[in-house]
Amino acid sequence: MKNFGIVIEHIDAHSQARVGKLITPHGKVELPMFMPVGTLATVKTLSSDELVKAGSGMILANTYHLSIRPGADIVMEAGGLHKFMNYPGPILTDSGGFQVFSLADNRKIKEEGVTFKNHLNGDMLFFSPEKAIEIQEKLGADVIMSFDECIHYPAEEKYVQASVERTIRWAKRGKDAHKRNDQALFGIVQGGEYPELRQHCAEALVEIGFDGYAIGGTSIGEPKHVFFQMVADSVKHLPSDKPRYVMGVGSLDYILEAIGMGIDMFDCVLPTRIARHGALMTSVGRINIRDQKYERDFSPLDPNCDCPTCKSYTRAYLRHLYKAEETLGKRLLSLHNVHFLIKVVEGAREAIRHDRFIEYKHEVLAKFGSKKGF
Amino acid sequence: MKNFGIVIEHIDAHSQARVGKLITPHGKVELPMFMPVGTLATVKTLSSDELVKAGSGMILANTYHLSIRPGADIVMEAGGLHKFMNYPGPILTDSGGFQVFSLADNRKIKEEGVTFKNHLNGDMLFFSPEKAIEIQEKLGADVIMSFDECIHYPAEEKYVQASVERTIRWAKRGKDAHKRNDQALFGIVQGGEYPELRQHCAEALVEIGFDGYAIGGTSIGEPKHVFFQMVADSVKHLPSDKPRYVMGVGSLDYILEAIGMGIDMFDCVLPTRIARHGALMTSVGRINIRDQKYERDFSPLDPNCDCPTCKSYTRAYLRHLYKAEETLGKRLLSLHNVHFLIKVVEGAREAIRHDRFIEYKHEVLAKFGSKKGF
Repeated sequence: MKNFGIVIEHIDAHSQARVGKLITPHGKVELPMFMPVGTLATVKTLSSDELVKAGSGMILANTYHLSIRPGADIVMEAGGLHKFMNYPGPILTDSGGFQVFSLADNRKIKEEGVTFKNHLNGDMLFFSPEKAIEIQEKLGADVIMSFDECIHYPAEEKYVQASVERTIRWAKRGKDAHKRNDQALFGIVQGGEYPELRQHCAEALVEIGFDGYAIGGTSIGEPKHVFFQMVADSVKHLPSDKPRYVMGVGSLDYILEAIGMGIDMFDCVLPTRIARHGALMTSVGRINIRDQKYERDFSPLDPNCDCPTCKSYTRAYLRHLYKAEETLGKRLLSLHNVHFLIKVVEGAREAIRHDRFIEYKHEVLAKFGSKKGF
Repeated sequence: MKNFGIVIEHIDAHSQARVGKLITPHGKVELPMFMPVGTLATVKTLSSDELVKAGSGMILANTYHLSIRPGADIVMEAGGLHKFMNYPGPILTDSGGFQVFSLADNRKIKEEGVTFKNHLNGDMLFFSPEKAIEIQEKLGADVIMSFDECIHYPAEEKYVQASVERTIRWAKRGKDAHKRNDQALFGIVQGGEYPELRQHCAEALVEIGFDGYAIGGTSIGEPKHVFFQMVADSVKHLPSDKPRYVMGVGSLDYILEAIGMGIDMFDCVLPTRIARHGALMTSVGRINIRDQKYERDFSPLDPNCDCPTCKSYTRAYLRHLYKAEETLGKRLLSLHNVHFLIKVVEGAREAIRHDRFIEYKHEVLAKFGSKKGF
């Protein structure tokens, strides 16, 4: 498609981390990037204006959820997602595949597609590769995703093999169905933990030809080393001149390690979800704002953060709001976490440009890495 | 006290409506004014910054609620309410009297004060005139209120008579207990529906001498004409050089009528509470955003409003957020209602300056008056 592509500006001298720009119909955004998730056309508690001010690039919205509420036709009639939610930057929609396989009940998978009960009112729905494209064309995001089968982990090789073949056939059908030339379409590499299947899926998708490639079937409960093996087994078969996206990853250690492997894009509900439970990512480690010790702590949430929450409010006030179940609390905490994660990835870009990404990764993880609870 | 008082700049030629300034330690604000209510040191869903941008003057916080959560000592240690909630303008705290009589259980009224079970955890608490002042001195608002007995409506004259005498004695005790000279202390006129008791209470409070006077015991279920009678029976015995405040009133017709009777200050949870239930005050009448008819309405909530909600989002989007129970919905709707009510009162000030307040009142009520559901 036109108006879409990546420009790689620099590759880190000591890793495969790369920095550059993603060109989209709604502007250029920096890579690598973390995309906040706006499931129902809202990143929970935050306004679109706050996202822009936090430095968000592309954001993600969920096809499955939006197809149920408010329905794709209404979003289309509004002029598409950008107008509907008043977000000026680029937007990506997933295919609904993950939700069909994680949220829906009474699922029946056939070659044609999947029938399932939706999680809200129990109505029977049908998703197929063509249907997922049709809905996403109505939603009108800049980047849309192929419909895939998200298998569970672990899964038998035989099952994964058959599933990968179907995912490839579904990807082809989706590409054939896709008509809008102002939307990039990404393929999703599946294949579970099996290197040959990852390779086969990646190569088949590249042969069909997509505007970008995602690595799917990760972050579904597999051990950490298996996650990185899956990413490694996929990324090496993907072209370097297309964007690479690992889906559903939001913890710092996973993001930074994957950036080092040449991944450009990430999304996750993690920063907003944990914020709503009072857990904050800060430059001084993980903070649980419910803790009694913050009752009289009149310092900022994160002394090194310049987000509106940290500039205007204290830990004691944020704890009070949280304990009193005041909406403003979840909102201010979400804003901080989104801001924080965006800034860490911004720091990664800067480090890549100076060939010091590995040092940066270790600095960040030493301060607030996985052992500290992210 | 120093740094406190009113300047009356003009009195409407055809009513007793007056326009001017309230001088406080945290700046001058325009009168008449509507004060949004921030019960727990937050106007529900909104940030302090949004309030300032909406043109809020003074805001109100609730002594009873804050004394339970987070506790007055914590607010004091934070440097007072202004710093705690990061609100730069003036703040008023009520005395807790209304909540003790409306929310608490197992209430026992004695001359010394009131013992009651708090509504959250059932702990027995004790409020007295001195205790209400002590807590409010710790909270540190610019204007604090005397502790009074809020009687029910209707109530026997004999009961009201005895209650008024106690309220007067309590007001005197509160004044004697009040030590901070950077806080104005208001008396509260009670007396139910009995003109002589209203007069007696007002005169007795004026003799004790307060920085301003509130009219209490209203908006507790009495018919509309009784409300205005109570206000009339109180206001005529109050000095014209002190601010006059009718407590707990947030509907447009009540506010505008009372402004015409010379009232300067109002507060109510109404705009934010009804917003959280999907009800909006707009220049084209009351809107219930849940209504099916807004499903595909891509126009602004209020075509004549310049609040961030109306400038950035459509009715269809707001309805979607509301139906999907997304926090952002309640937030954007609350912001509009607060903004709207502040602007209507701003319009009243402008009209008073031009001796056309009566016309303004009728224009406003014709457009979105009580018959249209406010």
